[in-house]
Amino acid sequence: MKPFMNEDFLLETATAQELYHRHAAPQPIIDYHCHLDPKMVAEDHRFRSITELWLGGDHYKWRAMRTNGIPERLITGSETSDWEKFEAWAATVPYCFRNPLYHWTHLELKTAFGIDKRLNPTTAREIFDACNDRLQNDPEFTAQGLMRKYNVEMVCTTDDPVDDLRYHRRLSPQPLPVREGSNYPQGETSNTPNSADACSEHSAPSLTGRAGGESPLMLPAWRPDKAMAVENPEAFRAYVEKLGAAADIDIRTFDDFIDAMQRRHDFFHANGCRLSDHGLEEFYAEPYTDTEITVIFNKVYGGEELDELEIRKFKSAMLYFFAVQDYEAGWVQQYHYGAMRNNSTRMMAQLGPDTGFDSIGQWQTARSMSRFLDLLDNEGHLTKTILYNLNPADNEMVATMLGNFQDGSVAGKIQWGSGWWFLDQKDGMERQMNTLSLLGLLSRFVGMLTDSRSFLSYPRHEYFRRTLCNLVGNDIERGLIPFTGYEEQRVRDMIEDISYRNAKRYF
Amino acid sequence: MKPFMNEDFLLETATAQELYHRHAAPQPIIDYHCHLDPKMVAEDHRFRSITELWLGGDHYKWRAMRTNGIPERLITGSETSDWEKFEAWAATVPYCFRNPLYHWTHLELKTAFGIDKRLNPTTAREIFDACNDRLQNDPEFTAQGLMRKYNVEMVCTTDDPVDDLRYHRRLSPQPLPVREGSNYPQGETSNTPNSADACSEHSAPSLTGRAGGESPLMLPAWRPDKAMAVENPEAFRAYVEKLGAAADIDIRTFDDFIDAMQRRHDFFHANGCRLSDHGLEEFYAEPYTDTEITVIFNKVYGGEELDELEIRKFKSAMLYFFAVQDYEAGWVQQYHYGAMRNNSTRMMAQLGPDTGFDSIGQWQTARSMSRFLDLLDNEGHLTKTILYNLNPADNEMVATMLGNFQDGSVAGKIQWGSGWWFLDQKDGMERQMNTLSLLGLLSRFVGMLTDSRSFLSYPRHEYFRRTLCNLVGNDIERGLIPFTGYEEQRVRDMIEDISYRNAKRYF
Amino acid sequence: MKPFMNEDFLLETATAQELYHRHAAPQPIIDYHCHLDPKMVAEDHRFRSITELWLGGDHYKWRAMRTNGIPERLITGSETSDWEKFEAWAATVPYCFRNPLYHWTHLELKTAFGIDKRLNPTTAREIFDACNDRLQNDPEFTAQGLMRKYNVEMVCTTDDPVDDLRYHRRLSPQPLPVREGSNYPQGETSNTPNSADACSEHSAPSLTGRAGGESPLMLPAWRPDKAMAVENPEAFRAYVEKLGAAADIDIRTFDDFIDAMQRRHDFFHANGCRLSDHGLEEFYAEPYTDTEITVIFNKVYGGEELDELEIRKFKSAMLYFFAVQDYEAGWVQQYHYGAMRNNSTRMMAQLGPDTGFDSIGQWQTARSMSRFLDLLDNEGHLTKTILYNLNPADNEMVATMLGNFQDGSVAGKIQWGSGWWFLDQKDGMERQMNTLSLLGLLSRFVGMLTDSRSFLSYPRHEYFRRTLCNLVGNDIERGLIPFTGYEEQRVRDMIEDISYRNAKRYF
Repeated sequence: MKPFMNEDFLLETATAQELYHRHAAPQPIIDYHCHLDPKMVAEDHRFRSITELWLGGDHYKWRAMRTNGIPERLITGSETSDWEKFEAWAATVPYCFRNPLYHWTHLELKTAFGIDKRLNPTTAREIFDACNDRLQNDPEFTAQGLMRKYNVEMVCTTDDPVDDLRYHRRLSPQPLPVREGSNYPQGETSNTPNSADACSEHSAPSLTGRAGGESPLMLPAWRPDKAMAVENPEAFRAYVEKLGAAADIDIRTFDDFIDAMQRRHDFFHANGCRLSDHGLEEFYAEPYTDTEITVIFNKVYGGEELDELEIRKFKSAMLYFFAVQDYEAGWVQQYHYGAMRNNSTRMMAQLGPDTGFDSIGQWQTARSMSRFLDLLDNEGHLTKTILYNLNPADNEMVATMLGNFQDGSVAGKIQWGSGWWFLDQKDGMERQMNTLSLLGLLSRFVGMLTDSRSFLSYPRHEYFRRTLCNLVGNDIERGLIPFTGYEEQRVRDMIEDISYRNAKRYF
Repeated sequence: MKPFMNEDFLLETATAQELYHRHAAPQPIIDYHCHLDPKMVAEDHRFRSITELWLGGDHYKWRAMRTNGIPERLITGSETSDWEKFEAWAATVPYCFRNPLYHWTHLELKTAFGIDKRLNPTTAREIFDACNDRLQNDPEFTAQGLMRKYNVEMVCTTDDPVDDLRYHRRLSPQPLPVREGSNYPQGETSNTPNSADACSEHSAPSLTGRAGGESPLMLPAWRPDKAMAVENPEAFRAYVEKLGAAADIDIRTFDDFIDAMQRRHDFFHANGCRLSDHGLEEFYAEPYTDTEITVIFNKVYGGEELDELEIRKFKSAMLYFFAVQDYEAGWVQQYHYGAMRNNSTRMMAQLGPDTGFDSIGQWQTARSMSRFLDLLDNEGHLTKTILYNLNPADNEMVATMLGNFQDGSVAGKIQWGSGWWFLDQKDGMERQMNTLSLLGLLSRFVGMLTDSRSFLSYPRHEYFRRTLCNLVGNDIERGLIPFTGYEEQRVRDMIEDISYRNAKRYF
Repeated sequence: MKPFMNEDFLLETATAQELYHRHAAPQPIIDYHCHLDPKMVAEDHRFRSITELWLGGDHYKWRAMRTNGIPERLITGSETSDWEKFEAWAATVPYCFRNPLYHWTHLELKTAFGIDKRLNPTTAREIFDACNDRLQNDPEFTAQGLMRKYNVEMVCTTDDPVDDLRYHRRLSPQPLPVREGSNYPQGETSNTPNSADACSEHSAPSLTGRAGGESPLMLPAWRPDKAMAVENPEAFRAYVEKLGAAADIDIRTFDDFIDAMQRRHDFFHANGCRLSDHGLEEFYAEPYTDTEITVIFNKVYGGEELDELEIRKFKSAMLYFFAVQDYEAGWVQQYHYGAMRNNSTRMMAQLGPDTGFDSIGQWQTARSMSRFLDLLDNEGHLTKTILYNLNPADNEMVATMLGNFQDGSVAGKIQWGSGWWFLDQKDGMERQMNTLSLLGLLSRFVGMLTDSRSFLSYPRHEYFRRTLCNLVGNDIERGLIPFTGYEEQRVRDMIEDISYRNAKRYF
């Protein structure tokens, strides 16, 4: 019997162990999509307790507690003490066997706090006190300190176009120069067939250069979901007002709206943003005319409800506009699709969004996803793209969609994102990597991201890397991958690539 | 090479073996959903042959035989002898390697009859005679005797609202008192955060108390599918007549119809029913008004065909009504959705429903499932609920749906039912338990049920428990679950909980 | 660590190894569905280079190269030398770890050319030269020579109804006699319940008889997709003209069209065809009248665009007509459904179809698939049928669909085809066989086919057989399948059946 969570946790073979410890573990972290609060990074926030850090906003833990019969007062109650909440969580942890929370919790205790004890009602007080002591007193246990501890090289936050990026600018006061030209080199220039690594000469300026020992680079990412949310005319109009103010444009027409979006895009670019992200239920690729969109804009801006088709047309137009914008600026675009959000009306009213009442949806979006990407590809406007699906029933569909639009210009141009949200666990990661391996090229995968609101989520990169090394190690031991000579070196490189270098080259 | 089906069948590690033999195997069986014939239980039916018991109604075996090229005459023919049918089945069995029927068959022979031989054409006669001898002559081989042999504590049958429950009443002549109040306690009362087991104080009166050695308790379950089946006006009207007679109400309006349903619900409650079940293709949550439903009722009751939207509205209204009824009575509600039934018109005409011509359907019901549960939750009318899906492509969707409506009042309030029908086999069970583990709390799972028409299906509980122990044992051996101290005890408790105690507390 | 791809490749247990080497490996190949060019077979084509053989039309490799950042010029460029293309492929191969291409490539090098080296940039030249030397100079390295090398007994190509089958006729100048009667025997005659192998007396004349050492039999298969492709009136009309010419009928009406199709069907039958194939997005079973179809035909033939419903009605009518035609001729019908084709408009314009821009689609076709099969079954017109799905999310739905229409006339009458296209790899095969095992009878499976355009794809049969033996061997070692006495022989027979005999009996 292997001890729980020892140094070879998840690593079932000697080959996996060697690959992980020698090649994966030492790599820095590029966390290219997360939901960290830029203010907390910029101000190097110090946490008052492990409860704030763990239970302040982690709706994964909240869901587990509700499932375990814990009353809401002890989960999100404003009158409840940090200890009471922690105690309720500690009572729930032993009911989480086989849930990723059980592993995350103990990996975080171990790697951040050096605590090897298991959290349960008998250890709760001791662990609570030990964590709080470090958080309150150890100079390295601040927001930035934790990021340094985990060797984080770069994070990309998730920001609304109206955001003034003041915290990003406080950390990086020198705006990056707006890049010349419209995009990375297309065609043959970056790859030569003679090269063993067809991507190694990729010459785009790195966003991730930094001197060793420095704090991580924090860059913004562009998330313009609200500019598409025309289901609610009132909220949309309020958003347009905000956007006008941010862009310093008096928005009266759809053209003004677009001008304002472009000004903000330029502003984000000037502040180092090279990445967008879109949260969608499904893809939208309805045919529309410019006139129609103008009319729809006027209608919704005027406060009128749109019908289903108008909504889809408007979303189609905006999605296309954003994609062209990203292509022209040479950015990477990301699509997170398939979540069915805010299912509980009661709890939405009580707690608002992102509090643990979302789930995996069902949409048949293959056709519109294809049409959308095809439209861009056909006009030469398809930039590097990462697709994230939430329903694993779509895995094979998405994995084969990539191949339709790989154009040979950049290795792994169209990416399938690592297991997202509910799928960000061992099984979800394994299924994503196995399917990507079978239907695409695992070796070109840009790898892990946390997508997290927590400064303690970096061990998920470790979890991912262990899982990756275990899969590859098992295949080697079973004679499915050669591991001598040229191929042995390629395996070792592949582990480092997926852990770090592929992302570094891609962004 | 491990011998076929020895005492450590399905148990791949020493830990799994110990967990199973010590903790899972000794637990009684609560079979909270089955299709046993109450008459056979009440009359303590004696079977004339293993053919009656095995092949009299088991459409799983019939399908296998048809696939194996056996003509219908030898499967369901009314002129065919028991031996001929058994012989045809015995010839098919060796073609069932890797199908669950192969394991069920031999588990049943072994645990009921003590027969260790494999069934095939060379052993068919001997096994046929040996089984028949026991069935005809051994006093313990009756319906109730088999249930005692398998340590069955309680079964819930599946009954139509018009049923007079005479067989349930014959077994339990003392009607249970109608419970006071409208529901189990909501909120914090039943759970304390300090308790390791947040559910252990659950104080609802147990339905499953019985003295040792007694025959199992047989309770009815409410299955009102026909009250929603307005696709066929003629059959619906005939059903309404029956319902009126059963409830002693002259049904002329929708209100009368509802009154009659409520009277029958009260009658079922008085006879110990605490559980409903609904067979659906998909969920229904169309907006409707009371006036619309009244009009629709009059129309269909008058013999007119309804259009698609009217059908969906009526189903939505009934589904909602049933759910509120169950909430008010403090029952558990179950939903079995996603079967595409009676695919063969030819065989439907020849043999009727439930004869092996159903299959797994495809419906995108996430949205309506969510709306339906949300409506109830928002109005405080959502009772304990078990969701069963038939298409495993929906597994992750359903597993995450639970979390949207877990309200902290009862641990595991919203349940995902164990692998149903085609999924009631090792792979289906493993996928259900793995996905539940990853996306919810396995430890709160109410576990196995047979959903069976056969008195020989109880070894499926054994199969389930072995599979559960094997999954957990493997995780322990691989260092994924700790197995010392507090956590070791929690693992042992969890096995007993899922095998028996969770169901006992839940119902 | 097991060496890469040794003689026990994919065979994890001693039992699997014995089953494979003794029972699976020696069986001839029946490749009942492929896309080989009949001309190349008939003319016994000699390849100018390994590039022609490997990269001339293999869009799997092309996709991998594009994903690896290889520019199109080096993939499909008409000016690029064979060496340049091969070099680009060799540079991509080490990026294909865990992709089936890595295994196919080395299996093909090993089994066809006896090359044990791994292909990478350091070995590319040597392997290129060695392969080309054999292809250009060894008398056994022609199209037919390769087929003999792999012990191919029969291939069925894929042919349009307008095809004159000149190459098939050149190889088999004696037309086969048109079979008497309308179909294989229905009912009980071919099966006796006493028979251990209910199918062994199947007396239909074998299509696959041949003397040892002969070249493989090449038979045509009927693929009338273009006769349903009414989305494009112009192309459809052109096709009707061609059909008229081939059938020597002046097509003016729908009845003429049907007469022409029947004449071609008879012509195919006379040339040995016993198999049809249909490439569909989804199934079609719309109600229609003959008058409607006549009107729709006139409309589209007259050049008018059809609306969505007209298209579906026409497809429904043709699908039904083809199925009855096949039933009456005693053929097997195959349906490949679920591909979303030609996703890249840009590359479709540049390279045409089947060049690597297709992917897995999403359709909810369970209902229409059921209706279509039910309609045929109900009228006694359902012939032997093989269903292939492309989206593995449909696996369980399809696997259970079979059982709805197994009528006991022939063992395994309705088949679920082996993992198709993107699913034709170890994981896809395992999932298909595991699901078929659980929900149907693996032992009645007709097994592998290549569906390939390449004369080097036969090792996929080896890959399949190794995977099959590994699954069965693992189950035996774990005590899940008995392996002594009667059952041991049945296991051995089952391996031979699925490798070869089931297909031989079925076709």
